[in-house]
Amino acid sequence: MRGNSEDQLPDLREGFCTSYHRGVELIGRRWNGVILRELLLGARRFSEIRRGIPALTDRMLASRLRELEAEGIVTRVVYDETPVRVEYELTEMGRDLEQAVAALNRWASRWLPED
Amino acid sequence: MRGNSEDQLPDLREGFCTSYHRGVELIGRRWNGVILRELLLGARRFSEIRRGIPALTDRMLASRLRELEAEGIVTRVVYDETPVRVEYELTEMGRDLEQAVAALNRWASRWLPED
Repeated sequence: MRGNSEDQLPDLREGFCTSYHRGVELIGRRWNGVILRELLLGARRFSEIRRGIPALTDRMLASRLRELEAEGIVTRVVYDETPVRVEYELTEMGRDLEQAVAALNRWASRWLPED
Repeated sequence: MRGNSEDQLPDLREGFCTSYHRGVELIGRRWNGVILRELLLGARRFSEIRRGIPALTDRMLASRLRELEAEGIVTRVVYDETPVRVEYELTEMGRDLEQAVAALNRWASRWLPED
């Protein structure tokens, strides 16, 4: 069997585009995919994200969250309580990644065996 | 508005899993996303993939195709003609990435401006 017919994929047919290229590498950058999946489940405190992802250090998580904030995908919300509570949540742009993350999740659970 | 309710995302709820983590980083590895999008349109010769992706060198493309072959996503088909014709096409596992690639493509065209 050969690859898919070109007719089936109209929205892939526009040739190379920098936005797709940036998007796919942003999602795939080390740890971003799992951080996004965690935040798609709802707003999370720093320590809650950490707990959900073994092997991710505080330093790396802080750096990734800053990058995702700069990209407009994550927002940091400070609740003025005592003690102050800080949560990370997805912006509209971030929540819109739900379909892509769910599709990758399904693909991975189908094809990549757990270690 | 807060993040999505947990009820909406049953298939994201399984906690950290190495298969998703590996999958998302495999797709996001430099150039893999665009090579996959190109091959989702059909079998391609090496030079055809190169032409579709400016800034990708021969050496880098060869290395990425070898990796994708080793992962079981791409297969190299040699047609015994004169001169020999070699094409790269997706395996069933590779074609199954269509939904994820299409979802990322839609997200990127919606949110990331072209340079």
